[in-house]
Amino acid sequence: MLVFILNAGSSSLKYQLMNPVSKEVLAVGLCERIGIDGVLKHEFGDDAKLKLEVAMPTHKEAIELVLKTLCEGEGKVIDSINDIDAIGHRAVHGGEEFASSVMVSPKVIETMKKLIPLAPLHNPANIMGMEICQELIPGKPNVAVFDTAFHQTMPDYAYMYALPYDQYTKHGIRKYGFHGTSHYFVSNEAQGMLDKKHNTRVIVCHLGNGSSVSAVLNGKCIDTSMGLTPVQGLMMGTRAGDVGAGALSYMMSQENLTIDGALDVMNKKSGILGISGKSSDLREVLEGMQAGDERCKLAVEMVAYNIKKYVGAYVAALDGVDALCFTGGIGENSALIREIVCAGLDGMGLNIDPTKNNKRSQEPRDIATNSSTARIFVIPTNEEYVIANDTYKIVTGLEK
Amino acid sequence: MLVFILNAGSSSLKYQLMNPVSKEVLAVGLCERIGIDGVLKHEFGDDAKLKLEVAMPTHKEAIELVLKTLCEGEGKVIDSINDIDAIGHRAVHGGEEFASSVMVSPKVIETMKKLIPLAPLHNPANIMGMEICQELIPGKPNVAVFDTAFHQTMPDYAYMYALPYDQYTKHGIRKYGFHGTSHYFVSNEAQGMLDKKHNTRVIVCHLGNGSSVSAVLNGKCIDTSMGLTPVQGLMMGTRAGDVGAGALSYMMSQENLTIDGALDVMNKKSGILGISGKSSDLREVLEGMQAGDERCKLAVEMVAYNIKKYVGAYVAALDGVDALCFTGGIGENSALIREIVCAGLDGMGLNIDPTKNNKRSQEPRDIATNSSTARIFVIPTNEEYVIANDTYKIVTGLEK
Repeated sequence: MLVFILNAGSSSLKYQLMNPVSKEVLAVGLCERIGIDGVLKHEFGDDAKLKLEVAMPTHKEAIELVLKTLCEGEGKVIDSINDIDAIGHRAVHGGEEFASSVMVSPKVIETMKKLIPLAPLHNPANIMGMEICQELIPGKPNVAVFDTAFHQTMPDYAYMYALPYDQYTKHGIRKYGFHGTSHYFVSNEAQGMLDKKHNTRVIVCHLGNGSSVSAVLNGKCIDTSMGLTPVQGLMMGTRAGDVGAGALSYMMSQENLTIDGALDVMNKKSGILGISGKSSDLREVLEGMQAGDERCKLAVEMVAYNIKKYVGAYVAALDGVDALCFTGGIGENSALIREIVCAGLDGMGLNIDPTKNNKRSQEPRDIATNSSTARIFVIPTNEEYVIANDTYKIVTGLEK
Repeated sequence: MLVFILNAGSSSLKYQLMNPVSKEVLAVGLCERIGIDGVLKHEFGDDAKLKLEVAMPTHKEAIELVLKTLCEGEGKVIDSINDIDAIGHRAVHGGEEFASSVMVSPKVIETMKKLIPLAPLHNPANIMGMEICQELIPGKPNVAVFDTAFHQTMPDYAYMYALPYDQYTKHGIRKYGFHGTSHYFVSNEAQGMLDKKHNTRVIVCHLGNGSSVSAVLNGKCIDTSMGLTPVQGLMMGTRAGDVGAGALSYMMSQENLTIDGALDVMNKKSGILGISGKSSDLREVLEGMQAGDERCKLAVEMVAYNIKKYVGAYVAALDGVDALCFTGGIGENSALIREIVCAGLDGMGLNIDPTKNNKRSQEPRDIATNSSTARIFVIPTNEEYVIANDTYKIVTGLEK
């Protein structure tokens, strides 16, 4: 079975072609600058790469080009689009309506449209991707895999904001959480790696350009750091994470900003970029710190301290911890961040082994000392596999 | 020595007359509805009470009435205002300028005026109280005791928001924290109650109508839950505490609110009141829960869960914990909240004893089991004593 995995954003789209059973990836790529000019980067076979600069006025032309590239010419990996058995779509906001992945239908698209106010940039692009695929790959099933679905098991006392209750009933204002496919994948792998099989208490730190933490009890999410939108929680590449409403309001008055202007600052000019003044990329900021830049040092300390506090909070929420997992670009690759986060958490049963922590590997691994009560795992995430596998299970009827 | 302690708010003022050496309190009282009509409640001697309804068009008339009540008539406790040796003022926002209490001078008042944008309701009232006392109690020293001062020892990675760095340098946007006199008093008492005297790691939960948590290492605050303003952190009587900026913005658009309108909701209509729909007073909401009200139950669970997560976060920040302290109206009196907060924290060394927890007392006490690694203290707070004692130390030159 071959699944075409599509992650459609407002001016870009990512794709993969994957066999969810063998886990073989035939191609992976990215269209950027849709509606501006258009660049396609396509990887296939054993490390072969292709870069095309072709006009992509709309997402439709972009997806047409991707499908053509998969079937023809240098980057060809299949004979025709008929070789695609199903399409799996990353969908951002499923609100309270979708607690799991679902076959795309007119009703599903209608519900997703109702949720647009909660994700005004993402859901329209996701819907567009679904409708274009239905047109260009006719007769093949489409499945929507929601970023929010895994977090729908949170109890009300964890997902509610302490605002007037009718803000929830009238407008759906609550925490939803994001990166659900990654939190699901990593916590599920961690459960498999643990000796104990009952009362498993897992914390997942998904640390990339966007970052979030989740607390997972027996495979079910009980809390996560992002909220109604992804700006809440951890400090990220360009996002501020947790900021008090008083501070936000004060910044608005001092800078004469509207709330939209302030959110723009908090989404695009804050976080690692805002503090370091150098880059949103932690690797560059770590280099800056090593070169003696004080603001880079501060950014790194803040990143690690914020994660550490969430870890402590979720150890409390889970009444203890069996596995702390690091994933995502930063989580998988920054031994220093993992080291600072874990320093001093011995009292919670988390004892990191410096040698294991500093060893580079692409494999899931345990970096805790042998005597550590709880495990510390580094687990490469694979959101595309979750999308492909959910698509496979729904299409073949293995899951309803 | 007698210290007149004044806590001047925008339309009310609280006062005490205390001997900081003997800790004897001669009188305690409250003026309400200043500028509206005026009510004075005055307690003195052994439980004697006096209530006067007298017009108080301004704070000056209110303070004149208080001084008259202290010196004349039924509520008299001193012969004349000359018996007052010094005045200690509760001051809300000391910004980064005041890391300790200070003798009031024209320069101090000038600096406090510069800080008015950070506390537009509180600092003007505090300054007014100082200027009126200088006029009405001439020749006696006035001391300002700041709510923010104790938190000034926080490291930068704890007090910075991950906003663009110049928001801090240009406008002073950072976490300041509040309830400092209470966090200082309780953490200091806790240190005295601990057997160990070095590397003391203390967490203080100040839980009243306003609530905050602090992490105190060797007597110095290293983190606290309130921010630039008191709306951040824990869910409180009517304040929302931590809410994502995306959720705030979404509420504004759905309800057509300005940022000031939204902050008004978050300060006055949220928290325990907003969730329960019943009351901002936890006692009434606990009754509601016992009577089967689902939203009261949710409010109680949220209050406890929020505290529990902050406790976990601060155990991580402190690399462990020696004492968890409960103070304030809720912290001192609600055994149920203490029980839910501590449930499942055994792994962090916090083991609550149900019998000790349920025993009522006005004394500082340890409610942990004997085998608990860390102590759990209930410590009645005494902010007025801190104000009186700081005033005494500064006026007598025992502290500079």
